[in-house]
Amino acid sequence: MTSSPSPSLSPLAPEAFPALPPVTGVRLATAQCGIRYQDRTDLLVAAVVPGTTVAGVFTRSLTASAPVLWCRQALKGGRAQAVVVNSGNSNAFTGRQGERTVVATAEVVAGLLGCAPAEVFVASTGVIGQPLAPELITSRLPEVVAALAPEAWPAAAQAIMTTDTFAKAATRSAVIGETTVTINGIAKGSGMIAPDMATMLAFIFTDAAIEAPVLQKLLAEANDVTFNGITVDGDTSTSDTVLLFATGQAGNKPVAKAGAGRVQDFRRALGEVLLDLAHQIVRDGEGAGKFVTIKVAGAEGRKAARRIAFSIANSPLVKTAIAGEDANWGRIVMAVGKAGERADRDRLQIFIGGIQVTAGGAAVPDYDEAPVMAHMKGREIEIGVDLGLGKGEATVWTCDLTHGYIDINGSYRS
Amino acid sequence: MTSSPSPSLSPLAPEAFPALPPVTGVRLATAQCGIRYQDRTDLLVAAVVPGTTVAGVFTRSLTASAPVLWCRQALKGGRAQAVVVNSGNSNAFTGRQGERTVVATAEVVAGLLGCAPAEVFVASTGVIGQPLAPELITSRLPEVVAALAPEAWPAAAQAIMTTDTFAKAATRSAVIGETTVTINGIAKGSGMIAPDMATMLAFIFTDAAIEAPVLQKLLAEANDVTFNGITVDGDTSTSDTVLLFATGQAGNKPVAKAGAGRVQDFRRALGEVLLDLAHQIVRDGEGAGKFVTIKVAGAEGRKAARRIAFSIANSPLVKTAIAGEDANWGRIVMAVGKAGERADRDRLQIFIGGIQVTAGGAAVPDYDEAPVMAHMKGREIEIGVDLGLGKGEATVWTCDLTHGYIDINGSYRS
Repeated sequence: MTSSPSPSLSPLAPEAFPALPPVTGVRLATAQCGIRYQDRTDLLVAAVVPGTTVAGVFTRSLTASAPVLWCRQALKGGRAQAVVVNSGNSNAFTGRQGERTVVATAEVVAGLLGCAPAEVFVASTGVIGQPLAPELITSRLPEVVAALAPEAWPAAAQAIMTTDTFAKAATRSAVIGETTVTINGIAKGSGMIAPDMATMLAFIFTDAAIEAPVLQKLLAEANDVTFNGITVDGDTSTSDTVLLFATGQAGNKPVAKAGAGRVQDFRRALGEVLLDLAHQIVRDGEGAGKFVTIKVAGAEGRKAARRIAFSIANSPLVKTAIAGEDANWGRIVMAVGKAGERADRDRLQIFIGGIQVTAGGAAVPDYDEAPVMAHMKGREIEIGVDLGLGKGEATVWTCDLTHGYIDINGSYRS
Repeated sequence: MTSSPSPSLSPLAPEAFPALPPVTGVRLATAQCGIRYQDRTDLLVAAVVPGTTVAGVFTRSLTASAPVLWCRQALKGGRAQAVVVNSGNSNAFTGRQGERTVVATAEVVAGLLGCAPAEVFVASTGVIGQPLAPELITSRLPEVVAALAPEAWPAAAQAIMTTDTFAKAATRSAVIGETTVTINGIAKGSGMIAPDMATMLAFIFTDAAIEAPVLQKLLAEANDVTFNGITVDGDTSTSDTVLLFATGQAGNKPVAKAGAGRVQDFRRALGEVLLDLAHQIVRDGEGAGKFVTIKVAGAEGRKAARRIAFSIANSPLVKTAIAGEDANWGRIVMAVGKAGERADRDRLQIFIGGIQVTAGGAAVPDYDEAPVMAHMKGREIEIGVDLGLGKGEATVWTCDLTHGYIDINGSYRS
């Protein structure tokens, strides 16, 4: 048992936690279970009204956690009545016992809410490979369910944190037909962050009425260009989970087609919520001092552009140069070269802070490093790469690699 | 112009520089050109007798340096009379000017030695993307060539260092038929080290007589399980070069077949020299405090085993846990899971320091962490993974990720 890690607030944190309105049909409550942390909450239950549709995307890790395996199954029904989230223990690589803990949790909540266990989703985040006794959670569930309330968004975002230095949430509204709907999201994650996905949990709730297959399509689309475009350290968690719940309480005519014109504004708003949360996760990257946007254009295709962008974003040499405020564009060349996608030295253009630094296979003539160095001293770094080969584009976001990352990860368990 | 970086000696450094005997037909000399470093040598010329055969392997980077492009061409002739190496500037991403510098260097040496420019190999290591004026090197070549001597191995190994904290060399002897031959190698590299290959230069010299196609085959084989099995940070240099020169002065009947029985002992000795140098590079990994051997067995094939081994070796979370002396095997599970190769949670066995820590998809029953923690406190860390699926095996070597890495790379250029 250890006390909660309490690194100082990320310098990239938003100024304030956003004001989240209630989402009709969603109630939340939290508790202190002492799973790993003391003196803080580590359990969240969010209950949604019967008939709520659900969509989800999960880690592609081949050693996925017991809760992820459970959710993948549960998702087949397309209906949800609750999600239970604990922090401090990821219940990953915990064998059959891990599965029993998930089943016990789902069964107790199902009993309390009067639904099927398969309508209860479960997510866990924290240390891998330590047994998680079900009683730690199940014994507290009756009081938590009794406390469910529509306003508890800040508490919900706090309860799911691990090494996060700030709670993460976002909200947007959208119009479907004549009806205004709300989308709220909370997320956690600050390390083991890489696409497909991150050590990252995100739970999105809307009062819109959207059929499950449509909801799944909208989530997958939005996820691809938001959560799947971020990386802190290239490591992929065994627990990554994004769940989207639609309670249908707003009263719009249920959306049955992802291509429908009236879902466009919802699509925009959902994308904004996910992007906002994804950026917050990068801004809380372990030890992060700078927020880095990497835009690749002119690649042979979108997949090539993504690989090149992530090769840059995950390069320890690029990330330490950014931490050192060094406009070391040679390392960007290196990272482009190692990505394994087609590149042509003489066509490659590199931009830092919008300023072109290379052309014709070398530094631009009369390269003036001064404005580039000034850009490197800021908190928001922009790297642009144009391969000059095709139309493939991708944008990814990362942070720098600092002493803080090593401090946090050299001693996370101790 | 900056002074030479002088981080303190790696704690993993060998006790002493090995005693290298002369290799008949090889002469070496060094000079201080002030390319980037002051008060130290930064140029090496090694001359080999006419008729010397040569083999080479190079970076697979798609933004390879001008010297690498030159060497790939020169290698087609199969014959060498010299190699010129500079440190401080990698002459990579330097456009047409970079190519002109390589050509000028080769032409001047060829004139001095009376050979064709295509028999002069060139390698450069250091900062990427800064113009390298040919005169810096060419003006010094006459005096360097005049100073060539068979004993200058320690000076040669020193001249090619960049952020290395110790000079790297290895020697072995072998028997071909009735003839004893010598193999000497020198290498540099300590960051941007990853397979295919590393920011790594290695030059191997033997007095054996071996035809060029055979030499190439022997080098490629040995390289695959040595230099291509090391990683410091997953970054791949634009300049990686391994060249093997065989002067033929030992007097053995020239080897014309790689499968010949009489070349077996040479193959062993060559493999030992490369492995010795590869391990020295890891032991000098930027900021390294621990030397880590990762053995993967039971994978679906050798390629799968390598991908899993490198997924572990390059994981920042695994590497920081090792730096923190934390037996955090959950991160090894994570790294196995993200490798993208087949894995089965319930068959996966993980060993640390030879001690089994997982079985049946969880920690072994009554797992005793004490001996594992004791192993983590040592300088030499062993991680074993058995997937339990097939016969694929691979071994790779890496080091931990420490504050030292960030110190060195956050300020390398400044």
